[in-house]
Amino acid sequence: MENVLKEITPKSVDYSQWYVDVITKADLVDYAPVKGFMVIKPYGYRIWEFIQDAMNVRFRATGHENAYFPLLIPENLLIREAEHVQGFSPEVAWVTEGGGERLPERLAIRPTSETIVGAMYSKWIHSYRDLPVLMNQWSNVVRWEKATRPFLRTTEFLWQEGHTVHRTQAEAEAETSQQLEIYRDVIEGELAIPVVVGQKSAGERFAGALNTLTLEALMGDGRALQIATSHFLGQNFAQAFNIQFLDDDGALKYGWTTSWGTSTRMIGGLIMVHGDDKGLRLPPKVAPIQVVVVPIARGNDATAVLSYARKILGSLQSAGLRVQLDSRDEYTPGYKYNDWEMRGVPLRIEVGPRDLKSQAVVLARRDTGEKQTVNRDGLDLTVLKVLESIQNTLFDQAKAYLQDHWQRIDNLAQAEEYGYRGFFDGDWCGAEACAQDLQSQTGMTIRCLPLDGQAVGGDCVVCSQPGSARIVFGRAY
Amino acid sequence: MENVLKEITPKSVDYSQWYVDVITKADLVDYAPVKGFMVIKPYGYRIWEFIQDAMNVRFRATGHENAYFPLLIPENLLIREAEHVQGFSPEVAWVTEGGGERLPERLAIRPTSETIVGAMYSKWIHSYRDLPVLMNQWSNVVRWEKATRPFLRTTEFLWQEGHTVHRTQAEAEAETSQQLEIYRDVIEGELAIPVVVGQKSAGERFAGALNTLTLEALMGDGRALQIATSHFLGQNFAQAFNIQFLDDDGALKYGWTTSWGTSTRMIGGLIMVHGDDKGLRLPPKVAPIQVVVVPIARGNDATAVLSYARKILGSLQSAGLRVQLDSRDEYTPGYKYNDWEMRGVPLRIEVGPRDLKSQAVVLARRDTGEKQTVNRDGLDLTVLKVLESIQNTLFDQAKAYLQDHWQRIDNLAQAEEYGYRGFFDGDWCGAEACAQDLQSQTGMTIRCLPLDGQAVGGDCVVCSQPGSARIVFGRAY
Repeated sequence: MENVLKEITPKSVDYSQWYVDVITKADLVDYAPVKGFMVIKPYGYRIWEFIQDAMNVRFRATGHENAYFPLLIPENLLIREAEHVQGFSPEVAWVTEGGGERLPERLAIRPTSETIVGAMYSKWIHSYRDLPVLMNQWSNVVRWEKATRPFLRTTEFLWQEGHTVHRTQAEAEAETSQQLEIYRDVIEGELAIPVVVGQKSAGERFAGALNTLTLEALMGDGRALQIATSHFLGQNFAQAFNIQFLDDDGALKYGWTTSWGTSTRMIGGLIMVHGDDKGLRLPPKVAPIQVVVVPIARGNDATAVLSYARKILGSLQSAGLRVQLDSRDEYTPGYKYNDWEMRGVPLRIEVGPRDLKSQAVVLARRDTGEKQTVNRDGLDLTVLKVLESIQNTLFDQAKAYLQDHWQRIDNLAQAEEYGYRGFFDGDWCGAEACAQDLQSQTGMTIRCLPLDGQAVGGDCVVCSQPGSARIVFGRAY
Repeated sequence: MENVLKEITPKSVDYSQWYVDVITKADLVDYAPVKGFMVIKPYGYRIWEFIQDAMNVRFRATGHENAYFPLLIPENLLIREAEHVQGFSPEVAWVTEGGGERLPERLAIRPTSETIVGAMYSKWIHSYRDLPVLMNQWSNVVRWEKATRPFLRTTEFLWQEGHTVHRTQAEAEAETSQQLEIYRDVIEGELAIPVVVGQKSAGERFAGALNTLTLEALMGDGRALQIATSHFLGQNFAQAFNIQFLDDDGALKYGWTTSWGTSTRMIGGLIMVHGDDKGLRLPPKVAPIQVVVVPIARGNDATAVLSYARKILGSLQSAGLRVQLDSRDEYTPGYKYNDWEMRGVPLRIEVGPRDLKSQAVVLARRDTGEKQTVNRDGLDLTVLKVLESIQNTLFDQAKAYLQDHWQRIDNLAQAEEYGYRGFFDGDWCGAEACAQDLQSQTGMTIRCLPLDGQAVGGDCVVCSQPGSARIVFGRAY
């Protein structure tokens, strides 16, 4: 690390550059030798591991099991579902040579695994007793993208993809909703990112799905991020891959399938929702380091203060917290404060000679910047409570931002007044032509038809014909 | 599941077929549409997750952090270390098309990541203060193999690969040994597979390494399995990728690097070391289901017995055990016994009307086949103790097998008497020509030069010239 504090471009000056500064200087990620690929560094990868843990607990509790399907999909499988191949084939990376020979058939690096999973499910499922099949996979996927940005859109990314088969349409639809709710629970509860829950319009659906449910989050620059999706695939893939089962009425029937996914893109959302001009702000539940202890002492006091800081470290570690002591000699306390703030550590504990004398410590919160002196007695409980408060405050701040930047409008001129920043809420006639006009005229897209049950009222924001659905729209990543 | 017990070919009739029967019928794995690729089913993948957990705990405790490097490596990077490219390029799968266009440079799917990691480390490491760098990656890799077998050798496999950089040769060598010891601890302690600890002969080293340490296990058919390796890479990769640091003496120096890996191959070893003619036998520590409860009752007793079985299930789950109740109506108890034995569940608990009356249960061990009736009082502690005993017994049985099939010999004719099955221990003159003669004459290879400190005594088992090193050799997977 260089001995000069790394500068971060202010958000207001250049939001994109701010993002790049934060992700690289906070050691989350780096650019790989191949354009569009990223290296996830340990500090960023640890966040991913916490997300994985949170998802896995909920997947298991709802009866899902992890499995692993192959990276490479033969072309003849990929093209079997007509809409699916149309959607994905432009983005596919193809393996054409292996073991020194040209392959007889091109193999796609999975852009998603419905096709290879479908081929296996067709082999495994015979009877209604085999259903439901509830599997999830953690893996890498590749989609050849033109414009990339670390975490948000990269050629290779890490994700989880769930694939399920059900006996009835109703069960499959319930699964689609249940998994979206699990995503909402993790994204709001662990990542502290408030979301809009909705379904995609027909034009924005997953290629091959009958219905796509989505969670949409609002980034700090007023742009939308699709952060999780859950797809009801009907019998499309079951028919394309011949996933049939003998029902208890003796009839052979096609299964009803779903798929659902979240990716390292969530980390991009985490950065953009909570970050500020000092750098990252990480919610305690997913922070690799929840607390940093910084001893402040020179000369004669140094040894005693350091030993006091070590005791604080030990007691917080025993309480199960992720704590680090910054005892580096070569940096000033001020440098360290800035450094850990840039890295988004939720809570800093400062200990100096005065604190040692009074058996106290100073707590400095990353979310609000507040400082308070607290007793060393019961410090672990105090810290747990403060971390919980930081988790909640980050969510509340993000929720307030979302509400402040979510306007109900009647026509597109009103959205222009906001510079097309933020979420807009209005009515839509339901015509795909209007969805396309929306995009070509304003750069905005329909993010979702929200599922909060609020009614449709007025006319289509694009064509002014009577509305048939309420939409939330905006410019998206 | 079909209503007929799945037959497993006896080991003595056809060991290869026994292996295939066990892995497919116990639902560990299936064959994928592309030859050489496998699908890891939930029951097999869960074992992998337990192995990952056991490794991660030990990696973190020794200061290693997980990260993620890209799947695709540009050809110009892959070829930079001369020995390395020679070793791996025949096995590479190449991506030549992406996003509908022919790529300007072929991209290798990583066969291992020393090259891409080296390129990044060169960018990140500047000063001695940046060292050591201790990273690990969990990922998939692809090596185009001609003869494949699920878990043991597949074109794609899952693994972890550690990559570290150190200031001095001594530190890098200590790291190489430390990571091998972590592997030994997991493989012996969790998988209950005894290993021979050694170093590879020059001809068997990792491509580009100065020294390769290895753990060699003995399978149930007397063939050896290389189950973990740890490589001291000297400064070869540091020079090829310009990993240099400014030392505190002001001199610019090359780092000393290591790499080390284990893979889903360990699951293949697990099956072959412990399995018997009834199927899998899983050590409790990595068993997805540690205990299965089977209620035995018909007619009037059925409801009361099932409710008793449910209570047993609940109390064992509360004790943190992985328990399953088999309440399926359509199968007889006998069918269920065979089914769970085939799946390797370490302990079966049978409960019938008599057990209900006496508030007892019957425990049936998968390792020894022993049955005993025990009190329901304190059952969780009893079960924990029995599981511990099963874990130890499986290790002891495997250890006894290893010792029984490990012969000290003076010449190759003696190995022929054993049909070249098992480990052989003898002396070697050190000439690569003799290593090659060994392989061409007998199909055996030098597995390792054991590190147990036992001395060299006699003459080379191949050429009868004076020995210079003790070797363990045998036919390998």
